Amino acid sequence: MAIRKLTGKVPSKPSYAYLIEKKREGHEFTEDEVRNIVDSILDDDMPDYQMAALIMAIFFKDMAAQETAVFADEMILTGETLELSSITRPKVAKYSTGGVGDKTTMILSAIGAACGVVVPGMSSNDEDFVITVHNKLSSIPGFKTALSLDEFFKQLSKIGCAVCEHDNKISPVDAKIYKMRQMTATIPSLPLITASVLSKKFAVGADGLVVDVKWGNGSFLRDLEQAKQLARTITRVARVMKHRCVALVTDMNQPLGNSVGMGLEVMEALDFLRGNGTEDMKELVLKLGMEILRLAGVAGSTLSAKQSVERVIEDGSAYKKLLEMIKMQGGAAPWLEDPSKYPMPKHSRKLPAPKRGYVHNINAGMIARGVQILSTTKSGKIDPYVGVTEIKKVGTQVKQGEPLLMIHYNDETNLDSGIDYLRNAYRLAPRRPNPPSIVVERVA
Amino acid sequence: MAIRKLTGKVPSKPSYAYLIEKKREGHEFTEDEVRNIVDSILDDDMPDYQMAALIMAIFFKDMAAQETAVFADEMILTGETLELSSITRPKVAKYSTGGVGDKTTMILSAIGAACGVVVPGMSSNDEDFVITVHNKLSSIPGFKTALSLDEFFKQLSKIGCAVCEHDNKISPVDAKIYKMRQMTATIPSLPLITASVLSKKFAVGADGLVVDVKWGNGSFLRDLEQAKQLARTITRVARVMKHRCVALVTDMNQPLGNSVGMGLEVMEALDFLRGNGTEDMKELVLKLGMEILRLAGVAGSTLSAKQSVERVIEDGSAYKKLLEMIKMQGGAAPWLEDPSKYPMPKHSRKLPAPKRGYVHNINAGMIARGVQILSTTKSGKIDPYVGVTEIKKVGTQVKQGEPLLMIHYNDETNLDSGIDYLRNAYRLAPRRPNPPSIVVERVA
Repeated sequence: MAIRKLTGKVPSKPSYAYLIEKKREGHEFTEDEVRNIVDSILDDDMPDYQMAALIMAIFFKDMAAQETAVFADEMILTGETLELSSITRPKVAKYSTGGVGDKTTMILSAIGAACGVVVPGMSSNDEDFVITVHNKLSSIPGFKTALSLDEFFKQLSKIGCAVCEHDNKISPVDAKIYKMRQMTATIPSLPLITASVLSKKFAVGADGLVVDVKWGNGSFLRDLEQAKQLARTITRVARVMKHRCVALVTDMNQPLGNSVGMGLEVMEALDFLRGNGTEDMKELVLKLGMEILRLAGVAGSTLSAKQSVERVIEDGSAYKKLLEMIKMQGGAAPWLEDPSKYPMPKHSRKLPAPKRGYVHNINAGMIARGVQILSTTKSGKIDPYVGVTEIKKVGTQVKQGEPLLMIHYNDETNLDSGIDYLRNAYRLAPRRPNPPSIVVERVA
Repeated sequence: MAIRKLTGKVPSKPSYAYLIEKKREGHEFTEDEVRNIVDSILDDDMPDYQMAALIMAIFFKDMAAQETAVFADEMILTGETLELSSITRPKVAKYSTGGVGDKTTMILSAIGAACGVVVPGMSSNDEDFVITVHNKLSSIPGFKTALSLDEFFKQLSKIGCAVCEHDNKISPVDAKIYKMRQMTATIPSLPLITASVLSKKFAVGADGLVVDVKWGNGSFLRDLEQAKQLARTITRVARVMKHRCVALVTDMNQPLGNSVGMGLEVMEALDFLRGNGTEDMKELVLKLGMEILRLAGVAGSTLSAKQSVERVIEDGSAYKKLLEMIKMQGGAAPWLEDPSKYPMPKHSRKLPAPKRGYVHNINAGMIARGVQILSTTKSGKIDPYVGVTEIKKVGTQVKQGEPLLMIHYNDETNLDSGIDYLRNAYRLAPRRPNPPSIVVERVA
């Protein structure tokens, strides 16, 4: 009997259907309601189907900053937290929504630590759109991606940076919500992305957070306006949670740097810190690095932040820090310090330009897909050393037959299909396109 | 790994997450996709949480008329259907979204049948907002609300009308979807209401359908625009399904007629057909009855339709038809033909007007709630003879202390709380309000 709906009476303990209806109608949850929701999900008290409907309603009707902040805080309270206050240095985490060829997280962890900032780097596979940083580092023999909370704390304490995978004892409700979002096509909900990211970053002791929101054909955010909205949402909610936060919206309409592939990206990161970076990488690392130092309070001005980042690259201290971090997490390989010793795949071939012209457009998503296919062996495993290098970037002039990029592979099983993706990712045009600018917007 | 999203490739057999995403983005399902969805729900292959998310996405993004028609047709195909073509008379069903004091379905079944139209009346509790017609009729001792498909067919064949409860062999997927909608706050989805109603009405052999969409404080459609939209959706989808359909949007901002209560409404329906109807009932029955006759093709003009409806009331043939139907379904009680023998509850009392003035407003939902509370016995059962009569309608002038309505009750357990609802349902004002018009819009 549906009489309750007629009179609009609300039962004293709100039912899940009532909570779903409230959000469906676009209303804001009270703190108690958010707590009730988070606890009910954690305790498996809320049935899956009601959780799914609630999440879809949130997808369509959004959550306010205050509501999202309470949501993130409640998520933190569902698990363990790391207390870093015994470390007196400032703690600033870095988060990227994920992009193709993005190896800045390992670089910036080292730069931050070399400048006296603690950079707690715990990231889950969920967060990153393509390949998570700790997965790339796992291409180094011996590298431990899983650290206990105790090991993580000790490493941060000692060297200032660590890059490991998310510990499920941190914000355990997040995994449940994320899994449901995956199965119900609600991954792109801005408040849920925000609550997920902030709960995990702040649970492991970060005071401040620098966010790289990527938009373009190599990001899940293909719409610039949506990327800007996510940047605004994350910074606004972080502020409500009483944390400092800056977000840069950056271009992801071509791969970042000159290589894509797990081990190859680690190589490029090390090479970057040896002073050999591509222009786009240099600009992005500088801009994000300056934000980390300013947010941490270790640089009093924009100029001094810039000088600090440049100094720790030039004097090799960031390079040493990255090696130190890799070693402390068990990683050891001759190629870390001598690129010629990299276990280069058996075969290399160029992707030839089909005609002369300028690189007008690169679909970074298709490059990632091509590399993923090339890396997949006959038995279905991933070969971490496979990938592409010497990527010709947007605006580069090429002659017919000149390589657009170099392909390095071992297994020929999926070669044709992988190359198809790479080939179709490139668009050449007779006139030089306007060069894209890396940082599109800064939101603080 | 979320690469698939990057390249926008769709797997050959669409996953449920893909279907959810497609609807989330506002796209229209193909016929194959609709079939896949309906079959997967029927077979319990689609997990509950994905069904919930899909339904919520449909709630927000709607379905087109073509899509909804395919959905309804596929729902019909999940169960048994009734073939009435061996009955040569026209078959027109009547459906109301449900309102407080609405006893027109039993009246119109009898009027239609008396005019030579077959009116197949199978209705589920889901469809009606307050109390379903067969529940009201169950107040008659012996009345069988459940008929087998065979009994239903034979009765229609013989006397032209039957009012019974929905047989779960008809459109069995509907019950699953409805249950999920109840638990996920998605009952008010216009395409899902439409598919649910049309699948059930057309599965039992109706050629045409006359719909009474009620809007107001005694309907689940409180918003006039939404009611009009539902009327348009139902008629449009029925047309795509190649059925004739007319919908009237009618006022439900006060109880219909002069009584509310299960048995009391049966009494009022019989009395109406004896020629003693209230003005609002007379107008609504006439308008709906004319639509039924015009749609059935048994009246060539509006005037002749009007005359036919009036004639079968005046000459008592509709009254006899209703008695015949009740008897054929096993109902027998002296009060059917002699109102003085109604098992009137032990106690009666008036609800006195707190001051002089005009009845300005009646919250029909609160009247329904009050009656529901008064009907609930100490042991939690429903006493079918309890209710209210002599309802003073909007626009009536009253003196202080004069009865706004009469309350008939047996059990005093919930008396105060029931009366509270009734009292608060009334608003008096010093000036006469504009009388509401019953039919707000006709959609054909």
